[in-house]
Amino acid sequence: MEQQADVPRTGRELRAAARSGRCRRTTSGAAPDFVQTNVAILPKELAFDFLLFCQRNPKPCPVIEVLEAGEVEARFSAPGSDIRTDVPLYRVYRQGRFVDEPQSLLGIWQGDLVTFLLGCSFTFEHALVRNGIPLPHFTAGRNVSMYVTNIACRPAGVFSGPMVVSMRWIAADKVVRAVQATSRFPAVHGAPVHIGDPARIGIRDIARPDFGDAWPPPSPDAVPVFWACGVTPQAVAMASKPELMITHAPGHMFVTDLRDEDFAVL
Amino acid sequence: MEQQADVPRTGRELRAAARSGRCRRTTSGAAPDFVQTNVAILPKELAFDFLLFCQRNPKPCPVIEVLEAGEVEARFSAPGSDIRTDVPLYRVYRQGRFVDEPQSLLGIWQGDLVTFLLGCSFTFEHALVRNGIPLPHFTAGRNVSMYVTNIACRPAGVFSGPMVVSMRWIAADKVVRAVQATSRFPAVHGAPVHIGDPARIGIRDIARPDFGDAWPPPSPDAVPVFWACGVTPQAVAMASKPELMITHAPGHMFVTDLRDEDFAVL
Repeated sequence: MEQQADVPRTGRELRAAARSGRCRRTTSGAAPDFVQTNVAILPKELAFDFLLFCQRNPKPCPVIEVLEAGEVEARFSAPGSDIRTDVPLYRVYRQGRFVDEPQSLLGIWQGDLVTFLLGCSFTFEHALVRNGIPLPHFTAGRNVSMYVTNIACRPAGVFSGPMVVSMRWIAADKVVRAVQATSRFPAVHGAPVHIGDPARIGIRDIARPDFGDAWPPPSPDAVPVFWACGVTPQAVAMASKPELMITHAPGHMFVTDLRDEDFAVL
Repeated sequence: MEQQADVPRTGRELRAAARSGRCRRTTSGAAPDFVQTNVAILPKELAFDFLLFCQRNPKPCPVIEVLEAGEVEARFSAPGSDIRTDVPLYRVYRQGRFVDEPQSLLGIWQGDLVTFLLGCSFTFEHALVRNGIPLPHFTAGRNVSMYVTNIACRPAGVFSGPMVVSMRWIAADKVVRAVQATSRFPAVHGAPVHIGDPARIGIRDIARPDFGDAWPPPSPDAVPVFWACGVTPQAVAMASKPELMITHAPGHMFVTDLRDEDFAVL
């Protein structure tokens, strides 16, 4: 009973657990139906360029909320939150180099930092599962396959680079349904960017992803379907070697009070 | 025949006509199916706050494209364009006061100006017409009714203020279809923000709009339906009294090469 009560059921519970140091695990599967977000924190002088990059590339960079310089509360998506403490694990990069993986930012917070909360694939993955499309990496507790493509993002200011995509094998008779189900969420990656032949988007070997785990086709009729991935903005920001950049550690997301269905268009 | 050939059929033709001084009329009804945009040009020091205001208020402030500081070509939505010459008529405001209505910005352009192109209601109005919902202001060559509401926009930096809405009378048996047809365009105002009782959103007298023309109900069963209006960001920006702000003159929009259907989600 005690153990059971410790599993966070809502965004608020999960953030409180992270804040108190009780939650250090990944947020995958926790607080189901609540929108989880990628975190990117950058100095204010880069904020316009980065926001513009997101605006120009909404599929890989779906903005859920931006906290103005120095603000620590996500007032829209998570009232009462504190971005310095409410993510289970952070990563700190200086000049693009990984330097630390702290559980709190209280010691290094600066008043000029602008926080970007970007939608993550969990939202549309839940939609796929609800539509009868199995996602083996969910049950296996592993990661999807991710690839750097030859699709160029639209550059903005100092930021430019290729789109990163995630891939899921979809049974041939479910591909149309997968497009429909994820099209309902244009604000959180939305519809696939490509269906079928990996070579068409510059992927040489589907068995060797650039990030995440490799997944062989689960059946002979399975089709690889590719979605824009939230790793894109992090990769692009890092490539510009900002003096300071802070992100969540992989899989350790910021969980909001918003529900997945809040982002459905129809 | 000569006359006919002079009516711009595409965004490119319309912009060329504006650039050469041949087009000084409103763009309503010209270049059908091409996306027309509201124009807001602000100094760079206000650009992050304004882009963030648009991100936080996507229904009244749908961003189609942002031109970086000093850029004059809308490379994404209108390749080959020049924002200094391709709008038929501009308005110039200094410290929030209207000072000039030029046909070109060549004389006053500055390298620190950031141009915002924001979606306009023409896109979803075409969708309504295609769905058998008549819009009398279209055929009469007049304007919709617009009202300042008690719906607060989410503030961003120096920008804050109420949402402005436009109203269209919709026959009771067409209201659901009107919601569906406009929901397809979440990136260009999208679904209505309110259906029915004007008092619920702070409108005292529907016969006395704050902007545009008054429209009596066309039939006893007509319902007033309200959409977020692109006048909102202009009103909000002006209220902050920026040193310099340039907009299109009412009805004289910047016409892109994009098609309305490019913005449909399904």
